[in-house]
Amino acid sequence: PGWQLADAGNRLTRTWKFGNFAKALAFVNKVGELAEEEGHHPDVTFGWGYATVEIWTHKIGGLHENDFILAAKSTPPTAS
Amino acid sequence: PGWQLADAGNRLTRTWKFGNFAKALAFVNKVGELAEEEGHHPDVTFGWGYATVEIWTHKIGGLHENDFILAAKSTPPTAS
Repeated sequence: PGWQLADAGNRLTRTWKFGNFAKALAFVNKVGELAEEEGHHPDVTFGWGYATVEIWTHKIGGLHENDFILAAKSTPPTAS
Repeated sequence: PGWQLADAGNRLTRTWKFGNFAKALAFVNKVGELAEEEGHHPDVTFGWGYATVEIWTHKIGGLHENDFILAAKSTPPTAS
């Protein structure tokens, strides 16, 4: 599945699956690089075989145009 | 605060604070290295200024000796 709305439409969330912990962490680092480039930072949860990225704008407690831009870019080529 | 029990005593959890996103991600990578060395993997949530590590043994749905070993080691020198 792609990006989904969560928390009554106030957050974008997406989960990727991976074959182990190292691949999930590598993906998380790519998302982190993109976040630094954009100057906009997601909340990330990951562990063995998965990574979930949550994007929202803390200042407004909801979604802003920047959130959709970060989401669109947060699909590195190595993602499963 | 140090490690705390969560989920009715079935998980160990601890949160660290950082000055920005990059420092949180750097800490997460150190925890990831330790996890690979131990062959035991936590669930990690992080974002701008924080990282939360949850440790438990999925196979038994609770805590095992290995969880406490990983927790004891998951305090890299760079942690705030």
